Amino acid sequence: MNDQHYMQLALNLAAMAKGRTNPNPLVGAVIVKDGRIIGQGAHLKAGEPHAEVHAFRMAGDAAEGSTLYVTLEPCSHHGRTPPCAELVVRSKVKRVVVAMQDPNPLVAGRGINLLQQAGIEVVVGVLEQEALRLNERFIKNIVKQRPFVVVKTAMTLDGKIAAHTGDSRWITGEAARASVHRLRDEVDGILVGIGTVLADDPELTTRLPEGGGRNPIRVVLDRRLRIEETAKVLDTSVAPTWIVIGEEADPAKAARLQERGVELIRVPERDGRLDLEATLDALYPKGITHLLVEGGAQVNGAFLTEGLIDQVVSYIAPKLIGGLSAPTPYGGDGFAKMAEAVTLTDLRVETVGEDLCVIGYPARLKED
Amino acid sequence: MNDQHYMQLALNLAAMAKGRTNPNPLVGAVIVKDGRIIGQGAHLKAGEPHAEVHAFRMAGDAAEGSTLYVTLEPCSHHGRTPPCAELVVRSKVKRVVVAMQDPNPLVAGRGINLLQQAGIEVVVGVLEQEALRLNERFIKNIVKQRPFVVVKTAMTLDGKIAAHTGDSRWITGEAARASVHRLRDEVDGILVGIGTVLADDPELTTRLPEGGGRNPIRVVLDRRLRIEETAKVLDTSVAPTWIVIGEEADPAKAARLQERGVELIRVPERDGRLDLEATLDALYPKGITHLLVEGGAQVNGAFLTEGLIDQVVSYIAPKLIGGLSAPTPYGGDGFAKMAEAVTLTDLRVETVGEDLCVIGYPARLKED
Repeated sequence: MNDQHYMQLALNLAAMAKGRTNPNPLVGAVIVKDGRIIGQGAHLKAGEPHAEVHAFRMAGDAAEGSTLYVTLEPCSHHGRTPPCAELVVRSKVKRVVVAMQDPNPLVAGRGINLLQQAGIEVVVGVLEQEALRLNERFIKNIVKQRPFVVVKTAMTLDGKIAAHTGDSRWITGEAARASVHRLRDEVDGILVGIGTVLADDPELTTRLPEGGGRNPIRVVLDRRLRIEETAKVLDTSVAPTWIVIGEEADPAKAARLQERGVELIRVPERDGRLDLEATLDALYPKGITHLLVEGGAQVNGAFLTEGLIDQVVSYIAPKLIGGLSAPTPYGGDGFAKMAEAVTLTDLRVETVGEDLCVIGYPARLKED
Repeated sequence: MNDQHYMQLALNLAAMAKGRTNPNPLVGAVIVKDGRIIGQGAHLKAGEPHAEVHAFRMAGDAAEGSTLYVTLEPCSHHGRTPPCAELVVRSKVKRVVVAMQDPNPLVAGRGINLLQQAGIEVVVGVLEQEALRLNERFIKNIVKQRPFVVVKTAMTLDGKIAAHTGDSRWITGEAARASVHRLRDEVDGILVGIGTVLADDPELTTRLPEGGGRNPIRVVLDRRLRIEETAKVLDTSVAPTWIVIGEEADPAKAARLQERGVELIRVPERDGRLDLEATLDALYPKGITHLLVEGGAQVNGAFLTEGLIDQVVSYIAPKLIGGLSAPTPYGGDGFAKMAEAVTLTDLRVETVGEDLCVIGYPARLKED
């Protein structure tokens, strides 16, 4: 058995706690000695022991002379639990295999250094891509201090999000629409442009087929505060509503909305548009770690060309509607050359009811 | 074993001769007696024996009291070979299971009648959908006296066939582009609009990666004969070129092109456009049984809204380019309501290199 094999086991252990470790990352650990697994563990919940602690408890004194596989660089700082790197040294491990360094640039490498200084052989980067993907949201949050941004779109097989008349009910089938509500249930915030609010008057709530579901915070980009005061999204009794405004927003209207419980977030403008980077910078410290962007086309296009998308979830309905002027999922300016288009990696294609769903990651993110 | 099982075997036998039976359909036959296969056959080539003949030769006298499974109604007419229905009766078969009737409305049911009049039990419609799909091109040709029309498009995951500047090199990767040339190798004709010729000056020839390939007849829709006389597609030394024109085409230019070996096909106009139905009616008797439409957007959109598409081959590159005004694969007027969009059935999703390929059939065709 090779390093990849045991690291894959550690990654599988880590993944079992998906959604339960926030704000901590998913981490798994496996301890191997003489070709036998003598300890394993995963981080299950913030405040509870790290993965390594569980694994070393299982291994006991047998850990001496063993190899530790861990999906994330062991921590070197005293947080709610003592530093794992010290535990590794104390356990007299011979070799440590790490999938990825700590994503926090301020502490990255410190845990590894501590191990190496103690004479332990350290290998870094085994199944690194898988480890990066496993904690993609956490890493984006830590490194960029911004939400992990998912753009979800739904189009026909000829690339339309509506007929040329604007009619768009329905593009996808029931199963795909239900899965969008599951996505809403998972995120902290859902973001749309004022164009979508004016055109469709959406509620932007989570409606799971079995009932229930957690409503995300509704974020509306509305530079000049054009929202109609009867808009459904302004009903803050069902979920919080934040409106991102620019410099020209009418103060009286702003005050009326604030009285109704709507939160207004003022961000700078750039080229006559809301500054999207400033918007993300404002949303993260207010608790939005995972943001679902549901367009329309202009907002999606702006996130695309500014390189702010972390994940793309693209539903494709197996139907053709035609129409030269029918809108597409990503509008805005777009890139001028096909060679400049954003390529998606780690592509996953799923069937959702009668529709397809393509999930991918903008390749340029890797260079971040 | 049930009827479906043996019919599937017969369909598999039929499919083995794919591409080799033109202008005849693919047909397979299996003869079963006492739960044992005693004969099987397929039609291999026009002029050679029908599937039933091969199967009965194998079965010999044992055919008496057996069940015949055949993918197409046995023929009742004297063609290049004697009628199979008579052979079935002579062989004293007890029961005949047929996947589908003869698609030719003029003779459909005659073979079945002949069997029933001889006291044979006949079951029709077992795996009918599969049998219809197996001979989709043949059936379209026979029933409609028109080519089987495949529309092939290539777009980004946000539905664009070019940047807003018109730049489109390249949308898909090498593997997908090679598979388009395989498609060209299979068809009799390739059709584009004059817009595509003016914009891209394509050759529309078949260039297989391993070299060689058969060039289809190039068909250009050019109502007012706007083609530039330097266009690459006018080089008739590599492949025939047909231009479909309307009433306003310049006779002097037409004569010059004819002298160069270009064939001009005049069709009526409808609402200031070439009548596409009349175009297909004109192409079929001239030998185009299988037509590949490669757009652009306006031509594809017209084929779509007029209900003239038999199969859709849609390449999707995993990239996003954005752009409000970037063109999409099906333009034209389009349908006004999402509910009017043409739904595709029998969907197949394939990975071709880094790209996806979605193949489907407009559902409305079934009602033809």
